[in-house]
Amino acid sequence: MKLIDPKTGIEVLSPEECLRLLRTQEVGRLAVAVGGFPAIFPVNYVVDDDGVLFRTGAGTKLEAVTRGGSVVFEVDHLDTAARSGWSVILNGRAHEITKYDNAAVRQRAGRLALYPWSQHDKPHLVRISDATVTGRRVRGRSVAES
Amino acid sequence: MKLIDPKTGIEVLSPEECLRLLRTQEVGRLAVAVGGFPAIFPVNYVVDDDGVLFRTGAGTKLEAVTRGGSVVFEVDHLDTAARSGWSVILNGRAHEITKYDNAAVRQRAGRLALYPWSQHDKPHLVRISDATVTGRRVRGRSVAES
Repeated sequence: MKLIDPKTGIEVLSPEECLRLLRTQEVGRLAVAVGGFPAIFPVNYVVDDDGVLFRTGAGTKLEAVTRGGSVVFEVDHLDTAARSGWSVILNGRAHEITKYDNAAVRQRAGRLALYPWSQHDKPHLVRISDATVTGRRVRGRSVAES
Repeated sequence: MKLIDPKTGIEVLSPEECLRLLRTQEVGRLAVAVGGFPAIFPVNYVVDDDGVLFRTGAGTKLEAVTRGGSVVFEVDHLDTAARSGWSVILNGRAHEITKYDNAAVRQRAGRLALYPWSQHDKPHLVRISDATVTGRRVRGRSVAES
């Protein structure tokens, strides 16, 4: 069943559909609040079960993560010609996967096809989990209707 | 002159190139910190001089903006097949354009081709200005190199 707001034309996506859509992309944007200031980073990711994994080097991303703060992760896919698209947002917490993690988690993470685009060394593996997932789809309309 | 980090293969883009690239897209992501928590919103935008304009309804986006807090705005363009792409990030402040603004600003904003994709009423016009603009371009590499 589709949930469409008749006023806005925006479809509210189910968590299952959100996870399905997440698996179709490979780059998302991680937003964190650092000292009250927002920061945003594009990252390569893969979906692992109901979580999202990405690699990072040392720096703001990792610091924000290891502080245990809230993170927001956004993925979208847009068709600018048709003026339609969807976005999925995860609100959750992130943690670095370390040697102290469950062996199964580490093994599964190691098998994931996670290849950062940049050649920068990114030894830290981070997982966003226990996230609330929400998503919306916007159907196109012509500019004339605006 | 291109500034390429030989270690990472990442090209650092000039502010002029960032603004040029911003003009090639029409959807970006706005990140704000609300009560210490990050939030992220996809928005339709246009570039106005060295600022970015978008429309919004009442809600978190507008509240974050009218509080005068810092915002981050990210735009990217990715070629997943070639594993290359660029991202541009504006760090700045946003304010709503109101009747108290300079008439020229309001007139220029009114002429911009800013058509939100959703049919939701979005009467508030917001401008991000005085922003620090940074950008990066990543060139592709094959998965085998990862």
